[in-house]
Amino acid sequence: MTSTRIDGRQPDQLREVRITRNWLDHAEGSVLVEFGRTRVLVAASVTTGVPRWRTGSGLGWVTAEYAMLPRATHTRSDRESIKGRVGGRTHEISRLIGRSLRAVIDYKALGENTIVLDCDVLQADGGTRTAAITGAYVALADAVEHLRGLGALAGEPLKDSVAAVSVGFNSAGVALLDLQYEEDSAAETDLNVVMTGSGTFVEVQGTAEGAPFSRDELGALLDLGTLGCAELTRIQREALA
Amino acid sequence: MTSTRIDGRQPDQLREVRITRNWLDHAEGSVLVEFGRTRVLVAASVTTGVPRWRTGSGLGWVTAEYAMLPRATHTRSDRESIKGRVGGRTHEISRLIGRSLRAVIDYKALGENTIVLDCDVLQADGGTRTAAITGAYVALADAVEHLRGLGALAGEPLKDSVAAVSVGFNSAGVALLDLQYEEDSAAETDLNVVMTGSGTFVEVQGTAEGAPFSRDELGALLDLGTLGCAELTRIQREALA
Amino acid sequence: MTSTRIDGRQPDQLREVRITRNWLDHAEGSVLVEFGRTRVLVAASVTTGVPRWRTGSGLGWVTAEYAMLPRATHTRSDRESIKGRVGGRTHEISRLIGRSLRAVIDYKALGENTIVLDCDVLQADGGTRTAAITGAYVALADAVEHLRGLGALAGEPLKDSVAAVSVGFNSAGVALLDLQYEEDSAAETDLNVVMTGSGTFVEVQGTAEGAPFSRDELGALLDLGTLGCAELTRIQREALA
Amino acid sequence: MTSTRIDGRQPDQLREVRITRNWLDHAEGSVLVEFGRTRVLVAASVTTGVPRWRTGSGLGWVTAEYAMLPRATHTRSDRESIKGRVGGRTHEISRLIGRSLRAVIDYKALGENTIVLDCDVLQADGGTRTAAITGAYVALADAVEHLRGLGALAGEPLKDSVAAVSVGFNSAGVALLDLQYEEDSAAETDLNVVMTGSGTFVEVQGTAEGAPFSRDELGALLDLGTLGCAELTRIQREALA
Amino acid sequence: MTSTRIDGRQPDQLREVRITRNWLDHAEGSVLVEFGRTRVLVAASVTTGVPRWRTGSGLGWVTAEYAMLPRATHTRSDRESIKGRVGGRTHEISRLIGRSLRAVIDYKALGENTIVLDCDVLQADGGTRTAAITGAYVALADAVEHLRGLGALAGEPLKDSVAAVSVGFNSAGVALLDLQYEEDSAAETDLNVVMTGSGTFVEVQGTAEGAPFSRDELGALLDLGTLGCAELTRIQREALA
Amino acid sequence: MTSTRIDGRQPDQLREVRITRNWLDHAEGSVLVEFGRTRVLVAASVTTGVPRWRTGSGLGWVTAEYAMLPRATHTRSDRESIKGRVGGRTHEISRLIGRSLRAVIDYKALGENTIVLDCDVLQADGGTRTAAITGAYVALADAVEHLRGLGALAGEPLKDSVAAVSVGFNSAGVALLDLQYEEDSAAETDLNVVMTGSGTFVEVQGTAEGAPFSRDELGALLDLGTLGCAELTRIQREALA
Repeated sequence: MTSTRIDGRQPDQLREVRITRNWLDHAEGSVLVEFGRTRVLVAASVTTGVPRWRTGSGLGWVTAEYAMLPRATHTRSDRESIKGRVGGRTHEISRLIGRSLRAVIDYKALGENTIVLDCDVLQADGGTRTAAITGAYVALADAVEHLRGLGALAGEPLKDSVAAVSVGFNSAGVALLDLQYEEDSAAETDLNVVMTGSGTFVEVQGTAEGAPFSRDELGALLDLGTLGCAELTRIQREALA
Repeated sequence: MTSTRIDGRQPDQLREVRITRNWLDHAEGSVLVEFGRTRVLVAASVTTGVPRWRTGSGLGWVTAEYAMLPRATHTRSDRESIKGRVGGRTHEISRLIGRSLRAVIDYKALGENTIVLDCDVLQADGGTRTAAITGAYVALADAVEHLRGLGALAGEPLKDSVAAVSVGFNSAGVALLDLQYEEDSAAETDLNVVMTGSGTFVEVQGTAEGAPFSRDELGALLDLGTLGCAELTRIQREALA
Repeated sequence: MTSTRIDGRQPDQLREVRITRNWLDHAEGSVLVEFGRTRVLVAASVTTGVPRWRTGSGLGWVTAEYAMLPRATHTRSDRESIKGRVGGRTHEISRLIGRSLRAVIDYKALGENTIVLDCDVLQADGGTRTAAITGAYVALADAVEHLRGLGALAGEPLKDSVAAVSVGFNSAGVALLDLQYEEDSAAETDLNVVMTGSGTFVEVQGTAEGAPFSRDELGALLDLGTLGCAELTRIQREALA
Repeated sequence: MTSTRIDGRQPDQLREVRITRNWLDHAEGSVLVEFGRTRVLVAASVTTGVPRWRTGSGLGWVTAEYAMLPRATHTRSDRESIKGRVGGRTHEISRLIGRSLRAVIDYKALGENTIVLDCDVLQADGGTRTAAITGAYVALADAVEHLRGLGALAGEPLKDSVAAVSVGFNSAGVALLDLQYEEDSAAETDLNVVMTGSGTFVEVQGTAEGAPFSRDELGALLDLGTLGCAELTRIQREALA
Repeated sequence: MTSTRIDGRQPDQLREVRITRNWLDHAEGSVLVEFGRTRVLVAASVTTGVPRWRTGSGLGWVTAEYAMLPRATHTRSDRESIKGRVGGRTHEISRLIGRSLRAVIDYKALGENTIVLDCDVLQADGGTRTAAITGAYVALADAVEHLRGLGALAGEPLKDSVAAVSVGFNSAGVALLDLQYEEDSAAETDLNVVMTGSGTFVEVQGTAEGAPFSRDELGALLDLGTLGCAELTRIQREALA
Repeated sequence: MTSTRIDGRQPDQLREVRITRNWLDHAEGSVLVEFGRTRVLVAASVTTGVPRWRTGSGLGWVTAEYAMLPRATHTRSDRESIKGRVGGRTHEISRLIGRSLRAVIDYKALGENTIVLDCDVLQADGGTRTAAITGAYVALADAVEHLRGLGALAGEPLKDSVAAVSVGFNSAGVALLDLQYEEDSAAETDLNVVMTGSGTFVEVQGTAEGAPFSRDELGALLDLGTLGCAELTRIQREALA
């Protein structure tokens, strides 16, 4: 069977993934992560101390903020700063990224330090949230190294690595890995899978945009997502090597 | 094995579910839905016409807004109207409810009519989003009947019914159905399942609050969620009979 | 003379008033108050301590917030949380309720405790602010009992009870008690009267929507309001018995 | 009996009231109104047309906005523009001024024109809302003349004049007219009375800041308010002569 | 050559400048400053202490806020408090006024005191920012005297005086001093010059609204601005005498 | 004399300037502009039509928005989208960029098209506004070419090119060109100069952060700025060649 994907990929093939570390000079960790034409700049900012509700607990904190530049997309969007409010989608993705990273953090080992991951989409071509999670892990690892260099850690805060990928069915019912924009728009079902480096699930978010899906279809998507996350884990390791 | 659930339920047992239709006088459909002590008031509002971006398409629209009264919870929360911004969690759940209902809607049959589902949590004890979806479907069905009575439909807009339930593992590794507040807070893994009356998946949202989960554990949760949704579908049918 | 009121009431007759205590499980006091089809859920939340500007004074504080669910009314209103600002009418009524309750509070006896009364209109059919005040007093009394049970009071904080009712003239010049929605919309003059259980005035707010009114007309409305508040005081006592 | 008022006035005496017309060059009507040291600048702005919900009705519209400069008061207040939201008190007074003026307007004679009254308090010493209403009527009358000069009226839009004054009891139980700041702060009961030039009531807003008041006490305040409004009506006529 | 200016002034002639001190009773310094028909009310508010980021430094702080009343202009503008956000022009001018005043302040001599200058434009006819700066210096001087009277100063906080004026070319290429509204609107190039009493520059803000300007043209404008500021300095001294 | 500049530059030397065109795939013009470590991403978005107030005039429109990523700076800043308001500095710079570009635009030749320049600072090391203007001109030129390719122009909309640079005195009184962050922070006087390719001034914004400056000092800064803008104009031409 020949592939019918827009960019000539096989159904189970990732786009070209590039992770460029230290893209910024000021941040304690920074990554330009690219999934094909999707390009996300991740900056990890370390501060001593934790939010007020956590002070004195001896535990650290990790959080994330996601945003898109106005012209990341095909047509320009209004800035949320000018609209004066953060949209629902932005909120939702910020929360997803934060939860995903916290799933591999040992708060005690991190000590009372906070790491904020800013994920700004410079260019969007589908899969911005999965690229953001995948890149944010690498920036997080660099920020953790920075803290280690300062002697500010009480152990190894990274219990595991974490990566994410999208999967979905095209209209012909073929399961596709790492959807780019046109594929994402056309997909009947869309699943974002966030997995640890050791192969367990952190988040599974499946949505039937078109037709509801069966248990078997869900299984096929999970298989493909597992494969994609394993490959992304390998790329993260190389980048950090 | 004896149940260790706080309220004496079996692991695979729903809380008492009550669906009271026509709780309001003005709304075209309205339901007070209760999952145990969780109590959500759903009002369906019908308006002729659709949002501007959809005008002239011949297609209808369904959307939802979720909110909590300040004292729905154990301690009082500040009002989002007074804070001047809608929180991320509120946004996220509103979007989930809207997508879930739209998954069973035939826009063409609905014609250029809009139905807004307001889901206001009067009392929260875990599972507010799943109760909201389950109740909202019933209010939606009543609003559709209202439109049918006006001769405003171009066919049957309801392709299927939709219901939702939460499932999760307690610290002993037992899979529990329909988590109430304390169980939800303690769960290592939490999965919200939204399913159609015919047993297919509309949304699957799994989150590892504590430890990441394996494919087998995900399978166990999906089994339990499928069972719960089937039971909720039965209760919805009774309510609408 | 036969009554011409829409719902068959005599001009000086209240709608059926129902006060259901303990409608919520979490709040320290809660009431579902109904004036006919007007239905307001009141939750009293107790917290130790007072706002910063009052700290160390030895005095307590009582405040209120009023809001309407989007579909409380005949046609759906936009949520103030989504508009990002609280409207003038909402502000005005919240302030009225707060002042009315504070008029019967002995701050010293309350000690440095705060009670917030959330009055959420589930269904509106005229008189939502007067129903809210009348119900809020009962929830407040329950919250005070809660504090008494904790041994947190320095005396009896309730100096009196407080209730409220609306009165107005219909187009035929007949003075009507407790206006429902259609009567309220049609009234030339509208007066809200807030009175203590011992028969003194806390607030008198008269507005000539149509024609300005004379001193005699004001007197007639005050007579009727006095009568209505006395009856509401009786109903409050029964509810609290 | 000798007066005990701070500024030597008799209990039933107004402060010196000054109404300076045409204080601004651009506005269609403008007044600097002073009640003693309280100083309010009122600008009436005329625009052709009415708000959308009124278009095509043949009826005009009158509305008002009230605000305080940051240093109108003894200590500086934060600007509402910088806080990003209009406070409850501001909203409430704006609404009161608007209703008061509309009570004397014949919308049909005004035709589809809008008059906005901006009432900006330059200096506050009690009675800002009553000064604003009293001055706004004069600015409104000038704006109406402006429209008459343009031939834009369909008759006489001013059915009557309108003025307002505050009254209250001091701690010795003496009823005082036109409270300045210290008197207002100390008053047990506070009543704002808005009356037409022909002596009928437009608004009566009485509040028991301290002790609730009896029917007789309310009567005494209404007598004094009636007297004060009559005097203000005379001053308005002189200003407009 | 005869002047062609709208109001008959010579090209290098200021409008009539009036500075009325103590226009308000509460503020520690206050000035009504008029540049022809442009009328700005400046209130200086003194508070003990400085913003948090400056606490403990022993240094004082001076800041400014600029705003326009809705009907200061030919047609009414919406209030920024109601729009819920401060516009870019307002921000920009507030910052300019604050910087200009701080340039002549010795923070150490001021001690840990804050002076806020509120500049509210009551009527706008061009040059509101320059009138505001010129008047604000006088109000600042009065506020400094107030602090001196309290023995709260550690020396002389005013290192110099500061004044401002606008200059620009009309369409005939004539350089004009102190542009009023019509001249300002028509000017190809507009320069605001802020200078100390001793003749040095604090701010120079030149903008080519129409055609870019040459170095010689800039020189001519700077000459004229220098002349205007010297004259304003003289008027400030007279006012403070 | 040996240079004392932090990075070894001569006083009259620009940092290394890099202009990378077509950095984005979707935008009609896009540039990554770097002044040393200052890095600004500019996207030009073309839309048919102009804002409402300009419709039907036959004239085009050009506007700009400036913003900083949270970690563009040494320490992380809060997002303006989350604060819910755009800061004064952001507003001020957005307006400056817009005016600078419009100064070289022939609106008639542009026709009723709008070009929005989004200038997002990825990394800040001083001179972000001057880098933004310099880069935005290049992106604007590409967007104009795009419109030309569509046959949507009525002539040549670019009357000239425009570039900008900062100049200032260090504490030793040496005039420096193109200040990087530490130099900018330490400068007593700071001047931003915006000039056309043909050597005339579009904007001159001088601020005495420390000591006010004399006419001669202003002259020296203008000389240096003129030199810097000429060099930047050359670099722009190369980039566009």
